[in-house]
Amino acid sequence: MTLTLEHARKLDTWDPLANMRDKFALNTGEIYLDGNSLGAMPKAAVKRAAEVVENEWGKSLIQSWNKHQWFSLPQRIGDKIASLIGAGQGEVVCTDATGINLYKAVACGLKLNPSRKVVLLEGSNFPTNNYIVQGLVKQLGDDYEVRFAEDHEFDDNIDESVAVVCLTQVHYKSGRKLDMDAITRHAQSKGCIVIWDLCHSAGALPVNLNQANADLAVGCTYKYLNGGPGSPAFIFMAKRHHNKVEQPLSGWWGHQAPFDFKRDYQAGQGINQLLTGTQGILSLAVAEVGVDLMCQVDMQQLRAKSQKLTQLFIDLVEQECAGYGFSLVSPRDPELRGSQVAFAHEHGYPIVQALIAAGVVGDFRAPDILRFGFAPLYNSYEDVWHAVQRFKDIMQSQRWQQPEFNQRHAVT
Amino acid sequence: MTLTLEHARKLDTWDPLANMRDKFALNTGEIYLDGNSLGAMPKAAVKRAAEVVENEWGKSLIQSWNKHQWFSLPQRIGDKIASLIGAGQGEVVCTDATGINLYKAVACGLKLNPSRKVVLLEGSNFPTNNYIVQGLVKQLGDDYEVRFAEDHEFDDNIDESVAVVCLTQVHYKSGRKLDMDAITRHAQSKGCIVIWDLCHSAGALPVNLNQANADLAVGCTYKYLNGGPGSPAFIFMAKRHHNKVEQPLSGWWGHQAPFDFKRDYQAGQGINQLLTGTQGILSLAVAEVGVDLMCQVDMQQLRAKSQKLTQLFIDLVEQECAGYGFSLVSPRDPELRGSQVAFAHEHGYPIVQALIAAGVVGDFRAPDILRFGFAPLYNSYEDVWHAVQRFKDIMQSQRWQQPEFNQRHAVT
Repeated sequence: MTLTLEHARKLDTWDPLANMRDKFALNTGEIYLDGNSLGAMPKAAVKRAAEVVENEWGKSLIQSWNKHQWFSLPQRIGDKIASLIGAGQGEVVCTDATGINLYKAVACGLKLNPSRKVVLLEGSNFPTNNYIVQGLVKQLGDDYEVRFAEDHEFDDNIDESVAVVCLTQVHYKSGRKLDMDAITRHAQSKGCIVIWDLCHSAGALPVNLNQANADLAVGCTYKYLNGGPGSPAFIFMAKRHHNKVEQPLSGWWGHQAPFDFKRDYQAGQGINQLLTGTQGILSLAVAEVGVDLMCQVDMQQLRAKSQKLTQLFIDLVEQECAGYGFSLVSPRDPELRGSQVAFAHEHGYPIVQALIAAGVVGDFRAPDILRFGFAPLYNSYEDVWHAVQRFKDIMQSQRWQQPEFNQRHAVT
Repeated sequence: MTLTLEHARKLDTWDPLANMRDKFALNTGEIYLDGNSLGAMPKAAVKRAAEVVENEWGKSLIQSWNKHQWFSLPQRIGDKIASLIGAGQGEVVCTDATGINLYKAVACGLKLNPSRKVVLLEGSNFPTNNYIVQGLVKQLGDDYEVRFAEDHEFDDNIDESVAVVCLTQVHYKSGRKLDMDAITRHAQSKGCIVIWDLCHSAGALPVNLNQANADLAVGCTYKYLNGGPGSPAFIFMAKRHHNKVEQPLSGWWGHQAPFDFKRDYQAGQGINQLLTGTQGILSLAVAEVGVDLMCQVDMQQLRAKSQKLTQLFIDLVEQECAGYGFSLVSPRDPELRGSQVAFAHEHGYPIVQALIAAGVVGDFRAPDILRFGFAPLYNSYEDVWHAVQRFKDIMQSQRWQQPEFNQRHAVT
């Protein structure tokens, strides 16, 4: 069956999430397929930012810490995120950057498993996790070790020597989704602590950390949760580990009684201990707008649409752009994919630049990956159709060969 | 000589910084003396926040990382802060929270002095520094040690056993200012690495880190730099230490080539290595507005006004509120003070609450400190006069004894 524009439009008509699109600012004529890097702006973010700046900071000033509950934002937003990732209330705080939270999480994981010294990571996944764990391991001394294994090597490498298994569920390049339940079960059967990085999962698909019995988790809010550029990350610690272990970045926000200004550190109760210093309130408050929108959505409906969007994209690229040398990098089975699709092409870089110039915003990942994220809250099936039409036009016209698309600059 | 309102007004007439006041949003009738906790809002922050949200995030989306130079904000703002604290270009980045930067700084300090294991802190100063160093020391193991010493004990305690001396220049409670040059010289003569916390110094008084030969420094932007609630902090590392030591929170923003997505960490050059993860761009961009305002100011003029404001306040309180049991906690010599004044009173808490209700916003610090910050950019001498008149009225009328002022809640 040949896929048509009419088919795409019909899917939009049936889409139970179609009403969410209007809640986002989208550029006319642009098809934004990079929400897996930076989510689109919820329209309500404009008002919220103005309110925090003009009213809360500008007028209430220091009193806003209580009056506008700035102090409890990490917990309040954390509880909302918890509801999206199968965590309990009081198990998540929204704070700091993902890498900093990962440092806390892995340090706690190692303390929870003190007889072992190995941290296992998937080396090919987003490398900041490698960098952070390499920094931690170097600091802890020669006994400690980073072990890299790719997904097909997990069975052999997750063994009784591993203290902490730290994995990103959805691969940042390929979009491959790991089986959180099975891997957690396997690793825990070997006595490992399991940490999940949900950067490409939270708001992209249903996650159930407690069903999987995850020990710790981290993730960001600026991709599928649409929290704004560099908006604060989150950290989850299962309740069973609370008050048993202290994270090393022990700042005053994690103190039992921050306003007693006691000389010595005394860890706060529960998830509070995972906090460190004063948070960037503006970024934090605006992040809540995106999280709130996601909380209105049924995660099963979100997943269904995500899978249909990515499938339609794959099918259309293969129908319309056949013969141009693209090979699918993402899993063909939608059950094994996150909410993004990657194709490989030797001229990936200029093709992505030409696509952006044509109003189809995806991104390039070295050495040869064209990466497209699909945000079920604001991407439509018709978007997918038009994106692929422009894609085909660029390939047919060979426009990607123009010199301006071949100049390299920093990409995100 | 009795001090009068006319005298205060005359000082305002002569004030070379008087034109800066109009650049800040100030509540009519309110006298804000808490800029040492959260600086007032520059009016331009409203427009900047809207621009970042609506235009940069909302319209340019992911392309803003290059187009609007989001990636280089930490360095760009860092260079501006550098000019305010006597640091060179490329020696400061604006990033993360103060406590997190302190963790990086002390970890680097210990690596620069590997044969020693003691970190010296002033235990009575703002305790998050104690907490952070306690967390770091605990993580590094039993060999390491935190030593607390008060300022009169520095001579005896800063010795050849100390690896790192980590001091906050202006005491958060008393406003006492340490002699940065002399202490740095003394500590370095004993072979110590010296780290300065400039939270109550940056934008409050002239600082010259390189003249003092400081090794590292941290500080916040949300007090006298008026960067907004919880706006990102900064970290300084003297050029002579660059590329010699790696901080442990080694995230991708500190990598030599972040967009090569290499598996292994390779430290970035110079100050870049002090970065960790993706920054909250909204908070960071708005912080620049406050920093830019401070960069318009002559630091000697700022210091002169700060000293006159604090002196006028002390003199007026002692003239108008004599006999009510206040004792000056801050140094009487303006050369030894930062830009704040602290008085002790056994009923400090309700008096501060009554003052706030009367539109004089200062804060209380346990057990008995009334703390007032003076921001030369927006506080006037007439402010000081009226603040003390309201203060006197509260004491004369005994209004502070009203029950509503005696209910404790979290204070900042």
